[in-house]
Amino acid sequence: TACGTDRYHNNQEQENQSETSHRKSPLLSGPWRPYRRPRAVVKEWLLRIRCCLGAVCGMEWYGYAAQGILMAFLSFLMDITVTKLLRAHRWLYVKMEGNSLLQFFCWTLYPSCLCAVASSFSHNICPFSTGSGIPEVRTMLAGIEMPHYLSLTHMFAKFLGLICTLAAGSTVFLGKVGPFVHLSTMVGAYLSNLCVLIQDNKKEKVAGEMLVVAAAVGVASCFGAPISGVLFSVEVTCSHYALKHYFPCFFAAACGALTFRLFSVWSGDEETLQVLFKTNFPASLPFYSSEILLFGFLGLLCGAVSCCYLFCYQRILQFTKTNPVFIKMLTTEKGLYSGMVVFLIALVTFPHFAGQYLASKYTTKQLLTALLESRQWTSQSHNASVQLESMPFFEWGSSGIPVCLSLAFFLLIKMCILVLACTLPVPAGYFMPVFVCGAALGRLFGEGVAAVVYTGITSDQDWTPINPAGYALAGAAALSGAVTHTLSPALLAIELTGQFSHTLPVLLATLLANALARSGHRPSFYDILSISKKLPHLPSLKKACKRIPSTPVGGLLGGKPVQLQKAAGPTEVQEAVNTSSETQVPVVDSHETQILLGFVFRSELLMFLRHSKTEVKGWMESDVWLRSSERDVGVLGILSLVGDQTLFVTEKGRLVGVITWLEMKKILEDLAKEI
Amino acid sequence: TACGTDRYHNNQEQENQSETSHRKSPLLSGPWRPYRRPRAVVKEWLLRIRCCLGAVCGMEWYGYAAQGILMAFLSFLMDITVTKLLRAHRWLYVKMEGNSLLQFFCWTLYPSCLCAVASSFSHNICPFSTGSGIPEVRTMLAGIEMPHYLSLTHMFAKFLGLICTLAAGSTVFLGKVGPFVHLSTMVGAYLSNLCVLIQDNKKEKVAGEMLVVAAAVGVASCFGAPISGVLFSVEVTCSHYALKHYFPCFFAAACGALTFRLFSVWSGDEETLQVLFKTNFPASLPFYSSEILLFGFLGLLCGAVSCCYLFCYQRILQFTKTNPVFIKMLTTEKGLYSGMVVFLIALVTFPHFAGQYLASKYTTKQLLTALLESRQWTSQSHNASVQLESMPFFEWGSSGIPVCLSLAFFLLIKMCILVLACTLPVPAGYFMPVFVCGAALGRLFGEGVAAVVYTGITSDQDWTPINPAGYALAGAAALSGAVTHTLSPALLAIELTGQFSHTLPVLLATLLANALARSGHRPSFYDILSISKKLPHLPSLKKACKRIPSTPVGGLLGGKPVQLQKAAGPTEVQEAVNTSSETQVPVVDSHETQILLGFVFRSELLMFLRHSKTEVKGWMESDVWLRSSERDVGVLGILSLVGDQTLFVTEKGRLVGVITWLEMKKILEDLAKEI
Repeated sequence: TACGTDRYHNNQEQENQSETSHRKSPLLSGPWRPYRRPRAVVKEWLLRIRCCLGAVCGMEWYGYAAQGILMAFLSFLMDITVTKLLRAHRWLYVKMEGNSLLQFFCWTLYPSCLCAVASSFSHNICPFSTGSGIPEVRTMLAGIEMPHYLSLTHMFAKFLGLICTLAAGSTVFLGKVGPFVHLSTMVGAYLSNLCVLIQDNKKEKVAGEMLVVAAAVGVASCFGAPISGVLFSVEVTCSHYALKHYFPCFFAAACGALTFRLFSVWSGDEETLQVLFKTNFPASLPFYSSEILLFGFLGLLCGAVSCCYLFCYQRILQFTKTNPVFIKMLTTEKGLYSGMVVFLIALVTFPHFAGQYLASKYTTKQLLTALLESRQWTSQSHNASVQLESMPFFEWGSSGIPVCLSLAFFLLIKMCILVLACTLPVPAGYFMPVFVCGAALGRLFGEGVAAVVYTGITSDQDWTPINPAGYALAGAAALSGAVTHTLSPALLAIELTGQFSHTLPVLLATLLANALARSGHRPSFYDILSISKKLPHLPSLKKACKRIPSTPVGGLLGGKPVQLQKAAGPTEVQEAVNTSSETQVPVVDSHETQILLGFVFRSELLMFLRHSKTEVKGWMESDVWLRSSERDVGVLGILSLVGDQTLFVTEKGRLVGVITWLEMKKILEDLAKEI
Repeated sequence: TACGTDRYHNNQEQENQSETSHRKSPLLSGPWRPYRRPRAVVKEWLLRIRCCLGAVCGMEWYGYAAQGILMAFLSFLMDITVTKLLRAHRWLYVKMEGNSLLQFFCWTLYPSCLCAVASSFSHNICPFSTGSGIPEVRTMLAGIEMPHYLSLTHMFAKFLGLICTLAAGSTVFLGKVGPFVHLSTMVGAYLSNLCVLIQDNKKEKVAGEMLVVAAAVGVASCFGAPISGVLFSVEVTCSHYALKHYFPCFFAAACGALTFRLFSVWSGDEETLQVLFKTNFPASLPFYSSEILLFGFLGLLCGAVSCCYLFCYQRILQFTKTNPVFIKMLTTEKGLYSGMVVFLIALVTFPHFAGQYLASKYTTKQLLTALLESRQWTSQSHNASVQLESMPFFEWGSSGIPVCLSLAFFLLIKMCILVLACTLPVPAGYFMPVFVCGAALGRLFGEGVAAVVYTGITSDQDWTPINPAGYALAGAAALSGAVTHTLSPALLAIELTGQFSHTLPVLLATLLANALARSGHRPSFYDILSISKKLPHLPSLKKACKRIPSTPVGGLLGGKPVQLQKAAGPTEVQEAVNTSSETQVPVVDSHETQILLGFVFRSELLMFLRHSKTEVKGWMESDVWLRSSERDVGVLGILSLVGDQTLFVTEKGRLVGVITWLEMKKILEDLAKEI
């Protein structure tokens, strides 16, 4: 075949090349190594595979598929490990039945130790690996390079630390979405390197695209929800989305979600590919059309709650950054701090203490399943004939106090725990806990509505009961959407439960919650994290500091760059080449007038010196430059899209400085530090 | 209150102003008109309302809400009218039962006359109003102004023409999505003007944003599907999406979808807000996990079919543009042409002729409902005890030949009809017919799979039957996605039917179909339309002409622009002001060297002449400019994002020309004409 012949020639050529020069392609090894014959066979097979694969589509597509499949595998592996660790804890706790003291120690020490281990581990291996990771990912996607956030050690520290955090269970109440997005970008960075090695070209393009795709795969493989995964990553990470990434993102996310679901089928957990949280909403009349208003009101309520939550969170972050005791503890004794905080939380949630009102024996998944149960809790608990023990809300009702009161208590305490847990220096996600809190808020609202309607109904009316689970779904989407300033949780809630009949009310609630949360340019959860970590991320800096959008670029520049005048002779050029290491040197009219004319490449200057021409003018190129007076820092975000590596800043035509992306990063970092 | 006082002062000021000058705000009328007292009262109330509305949120948000609500109203109005017209045709046809000749005339002349009317009407009122409108909308959203595509006459012509086309029913087999996107942008343009009038500021921002929002609302209000509506418009219209439009788009789309569904509840059609096409898929085991492979194969099949369809479509478009008979007919006798073609189509679909195998008595909605019926057709028709008459596929099976054969015939003929119908010069959408064809293709495939599996099963096995409707859903999404080169039909299919269990297989099929359809840089359906209409839309031009992405800008420029040299005196400045009408005049080093230094504003030059300064250099500004040698036409698309109105093109620092958006449009139009 043509492909075969091609490959053969290719092979021959490369063989010849390898005789004269050292290996150019990693698939070719040098001639001095042993086992020449077997290696040649392996090499030929590898080249043949590459040829076959390359004939179907570009190598990057295999990279995208591998990205999805790998992340799904990691997600599944993590789920299985965490489930086993949680089951071990549960087994130990049940075995100690009858001895409250032992049970107490089992309940509190198990999560404390796990979190302390997670904290020490991540502190010692890679101190950057704590927290969500989404703020770092979006900073990287905005064009700022942060290589230490993509290292292999970081990945292992994050993965193992996250397993420990999740194994601490619903006591600590943390999720895995954020770290998974981060893990995914790390895997993406490695895969893009691999693709470049195999392809030998298009380095930058693949690398940038792979990171965008990786961010989308993170969420998709976490829940097996491809569409909302892509949309969430788009909303959180970008300010301008290039549509050419759309197809790769969906492709990789679909691969990830498909593999994740197939793993659950193969492991025997499920019969077929299904939604993560099965629900049983009535299909005939999902909700009355007048309930739309109530859903809207719930959205506003969730928006208000999210504002309170973010305010508390911002305050506690500030407190831990300014209080000397906390500063000392969080820099030197991270493990001890984590252990102590988790012990405190576990104390509150101990089932023989306040835990009996908190359904603290449930895992996060069980909590969500219970909250999304379509039967009304209050009417069921009135009816004594129903087997209470089998109901999912039994954990809330077991203490004897009314279910609604118990649920309100649950909501309040969980929100406080969440604010506290967010200060823990462990790898953890904060999306899922907010989602569960939102579901509880919605459920409380829904139960209230159902109870009010129930009392107004006479028994002989033909009447379909109100479904409080619909409110729980809307509440979950609205609160998590409002906290993160995104709309995709609406779709996520639907993808997780498969309840498409509720699309419109859920979307409405999320929209209204977002409108309230975004009003007055309030920062989102990730903006607060970005600002607190002093990351050079322009959109969040803009929210933190009102004056940034109107700061002129000129004021932020350092000293004059090395420059050449139009009529520069060889001496001046030689000096410029010696003093500057930039690849582009700006050319001005004359040193007096300073009017920028363009730039010359360093390589051209070297050639100029070799041939000793008379003027640099001939080679000059002009590129994108910026008016310092008028253009502000805000515009630089858009200019990064144009893909220019160097920007010249002028004022009334006169050169006042040069910005490279490296310097741009420094400017943003300085701005971040100032706040 | 503060608001009240503010309003009062505002009012007073405006009163004073209106004494001296003519009305600046449209809420204020001149002092010479009658009924001064009542008008003052009305004016005060209007101002008070504006003040109250403005206190909650910006005026543009009311615009977005109004956009959604208005489009939903138009969509509902159109649906009702079309239903009534279709019912009238049906009633007439049934009344003539027994007389085949009369029935024949009723069947053929009714749609022919309607299409002839639609064609003549749109030809006489507004010749641009034929076709889909999506190519025009995306050209406008890319920054090219086409005011005649947003005129009020155009809107009326399109609306009434579309009603006539749709009333011709499933015989002509055309949809409403495309024209609705176009109608929505027209409404959006008017609403943005209104917002600007009320707000008196931020003109450009609101106008651009409103058009993006309007495009999203178009699809959303058409089907009551907000999420896929927004995504479809994003995929079809943009190459870079600004995330700041995301929230307004979803807000307006949710308003539109909500209103559209509420209208159906209020009109008594439905009990509550529900999906457009109700389905009854089995919930317990939606599909076996091994069926994923079959769904993938169906996707590839749909991709291949879409390539054939687009090839035929491109050929027939070329034929109508080059054949002298067609050219003459399509320029002068549009009505006659439409009537004849529709008569021909109606002849084929006449129920006493080939129509009996085509289910031609069904409306498009009934067709889709029948194709998405979850019970297997073939096994049902074997079983004589089932009441055949009540089954939705009865129309296909009524002729006595096997249902599958009938379905294959249906698919073939409908595709041919669709290719022919696409040449009709009437306002019409082409998305929904492709969607239905895809559903038929998927159904055929699914019935085949079900029949093969059915024969391999012994009766005593516990076995859930294969659901062919799942394949129909996947086929519909995959074919329409492949034809338009978009992924959102996957979500649309799910939003229309509410079958979330099938998300992954549908998405997979759509992805694979798209991969096949996009391979080899083939143009999408809308690209073909753009190219055939010679619209200046860069992404579609790139696909039509391979050399465009590597064409340097410099080669496309016209003559030298008016320019000033650095040391220009008053005489030269006076001459430049007289000869050029541009707002920005470029400044060069000297007329010999031509090295571009920057530009001065015309207003500054006028000031300069008044004060008679010595050199223009002092006012000079430098802005974004472009290297002609290196930068190609492709990059201009991105540069439009930066928002600069004028680009200076240089070669080795020397000015070779200036591009404004107006000229840019001309360059693109010239490129379009060349192809």
